[in-house]
Amino acid sequence: MICKNLSRNERGELCLAGHELSPLAEKYGTPVYLYDEARIRERCRTYLDAVNAAFDGRGRVLYASKAACFKRLYEIMREEGMGIDVVSCGEIYTAERAGYPLGLAYFHSNNKTDADIAYAIDHGIGYFVADNAEELYAVDRIAAQKDKRQKLLLRITPGIDPHTYAAVATGKVDSKFGSAIETGQALEISKLALSLENLELCGFHCHVGSQVFDSEVYISAARVMLDFVAEVKRELGYSAKELDIGGGYGVRYIEDQPEIDIAANIAEVGAFMKNYAAGLGIELPEIAFEPGRSIVADSGLTLYSVGTVKRIPGYKTYVSVDGGMTDNPRFALYGSPYTILPVCREIEADNAMTCSVVGRCCESGDILQENVSLPSDIGRGELLACLTTGAYHYSMASNYNRITKLPVVMLTEDRDYLAVRRESFEHLTALDV
Amino acid sequence: MICKNLSRNERGELCLAGHELSPLAEKYGTPVYLYDEARIRERCRTYLDAVNAAFDGRGRVLYASKAACFKRLYEIMREEGMGIDVVSCGEIYTAERAGYPLGLAYFHSNNKTDADIAYAIDHGIGYFVADNAEELYAVDRIAAQKDKRQKLLLRITPGIDPHTYAAVATGKVDSKFGSAIETGQALEISKLALSLENLELCGFHCHVGSQVFDSEVYISAARVMLDFVAEVKRELGYSAKELDIGGGYGVRYIEDQPEIDIAANIAEVGAFMKNYAAGLGIELPEIAFEPGRSIVADSGLTLYSVGTVKRIPGYKTYVSVDGGMTDNPRFALYGSPYTILPVCREIEADNAMTCSVVGRCCESGDILQENVSLPSDIGRGELLACLTTGAYHYSMASNYNRITKLPVVMLTEDRDYLAVRRESFEHLTALDV
Repeated sequence: MICKNLSRNERGELCLAGHELSPLAEKYGTPVYLYDEARIRERCRTYLDAVNAAFDGRGRVLYASKAACFKRLYEIMREEGMGIDVVSCGEIYTAERAGYPLGLAYFHSNNKTDADIAYAIDHGIGYFVADNAEELYAVDRIAAQKDKRQKLLLRITPGIDPHTYAAVATGKVDSKFGSAIETGQALEISKLALSLENLELCGFHCHVGSQVFDSEVYISAARVMLDFVAEVKRELGYSAKELDIGGGYGVRYIEDQPEIDIAANIAEVGAFMKNYAAGLGIELPEIAFEPGRSIVADSGLTLYSVGTVKRIPGYKTYVSVDGGMTDNPRFALYGSPYTILPVCREIEADNAMTCSVVGRCCESGDILQENVSLPSDIGRGELLACLTTGAYHYSMASNYNRITKLPVVMLTEDRDYLAVRRESFEHLTALDV
Repeated sequence: MICKNLSRNERGELCLAGHELSPLAEKYGTPVYLYDEARIRERCRTYLDAVNAAFDGRGRVLYASKAACFKRLYEIMREEGMGIDVVSCGEIYTAERAGYPLGLAYFHSNNKTDADIAYAIDHGIGYFVADNAEELYAVDRIAAQKDKRQKLLLRITPGIDPHTYAAVATGKVDSKFGSAIETGQALEISKLALSLENLELCGFHCHVGSQVFDSEVYISAARVMLDFVAEVKRELGYSAKELDIGGGYGVRYIEDQPEIDIAANIAEVGAFMKNYAAGLGIELPEIAFEPGRSIVADSGLTLYSVGTVKRIPGYKTYVSVDGGMTDNPRFALYGSPYTILPVCREIEADNAMTCSVVGRCCESGDILQENVSLPSDIGRGELLACLTTGAYHYSMASNYNRITKLPVVMLTEDRDYLAVRRESFEHLTALDV
């Protein structure tokens, strides 16, 4: 099993967090997103403990909400003492509705409108992670109107390509996000931020990528960013108090992918940073990590029912389920790999077939996964689980084909409960005039 | 201009259906989808007139709702005398709410659940376009429970590859949709449909692809399908009354793409079919066309405001707008080309730059278009129009990054009105428990 919260009971039925899946399908219907609440909390604690240990209690962990955003998740983040990274007023609104203290929230996005900025300030956002000069001017102006001084970090592009694992000036400088160190624009924007009266520059932010499996990437980013912190101190006389090195630790979608020891990775990055900062003669800023996917991805799975099995002699077999690209657009967008398993029985070697698992949308690209091994006698009504769907599924879902969104069900040790209700036709059409 | 409903007024401002765009941006805010209602009606009439002329009043035109689905559109379809193709109960519900008579609706989808089937029958759906054997058994069983006999077409895979323009047994047989003629499965499923008591087989359906610019594709499909109709008559003694040859006529997203003369194309296909059917010694079934994109795409455009312009020396320039992959995922999914223009002025040759137009999502893939020519002094607040966004934009929109969905505004000769309201934060979070 790719995550330890998965098991098979004595009858061979797949369980998540100890819960048999077929009674949940019966109770909530399919398709449905299931989340293992304990696993979410465990991942938060893994990060918090590791960051506390690595940075002597001076670190922060911010949950990157875009991975999955609904009220109940923010309640969990609040209870676990996590900060949050939000990217829109919709996320800010949701967090606030959940009683999340927005002073611990960091507001990202490469393009905040004046209305967004005013909304965030009015609602007491802790920090802006300011992306560009237009934003600095707008935040300064709007904060002035509201007689406030707004704390912020600056998003910096370190020029790291996470796939070469080297601190090189690659295409990553070519990004819609942030200001590049290489081009001198990062220093320039720091100067601008320091010059504007209603802004309180608190430090810097970077983000190197996602599905990163190697701490070397973070060490490269840390090196570049600490060099930059030292440069800013030298050139502008400003000492950064915070340095947010983003998120991106990889998660396991398929057996071939490794499992990352987050604690060991962060310890390694922490040791490097302390040592490197000392070498540069600067004080190490407070360090923040921003995990999203690695907090929630493997806490979740999606439960589907098979509708039809189409065998095309000489071509292939298609197994259609009652969901698809509307609840999981990641194969259509990125060809992302997933593990799909039958729920009520294991696959026997002498009763296996290779097939494409596809969705119910009228769209050829509506594929969940190719080359899936399933029992060759699978048929209408049998349950399938697509694993590791806790991140970027509910949050990326669409209503394409006018298909309603799935409910989110949370599992704890002793109960299951709805965190998001299944969308109704009334909700779907409520905005139609 | 790529569509005749676009113009520039004397001040150089872009107009849709004669309406200046900046007052609409002011009134409804940005981003916003705008639709030219007259153009939608004109396209319906073009199809209806062409099909009537080509098939002596015995043809049908069904609007493929998945291209864009909201109540107001179904009212227009009803008024224009269009049939509709629906792919989910969400579409059926929406059509019914709009007062659309469901007896004219054809229910597609490769995977209808028992609940879908019951819903559609209960609501008086005209026809199922049945995809597979599981569906036939389910419709037969559920219709029996309700003491009904359900009309249906069978979806057949003709083995046409729209990109080679030839009736060859290509990968198109390899599809999650329908039953292939080549493998004998189409004949088999016809026999099954005829054998089930509560089904009334009315004919056959096929769909060859989308963005097709050549009538040759439809002629190829018609040839294969009429051969099949003759085969079924010969083998099973059944004469098909209807033959739906699907949709797919291309629309112009960029100047390089041709404009199709729909009427001439349909006339050509009609002449071929009459002649070919006569040669086969069969009566020509009633022919249906199923346009979606070509009814609504060029009636629509999306209006955005620029937020930030990021010039990265030695790399490129990014222009960020206040929408993105959440309201238009087609570049992210398919690399689809679009024409993006400044609204309030034309581009002067001596003041142009090439840039990437990107969205506001925290996602590297959130790009609307690469290599767009825009005024080099463009800045925050300036309006941009992305053309030809009437199909597969509102319908494919997501709430990724917890971004609310755009309103849909219709334009007529003398007024503008809301067809879909802008999504509120309350609506966005209404399902959160």
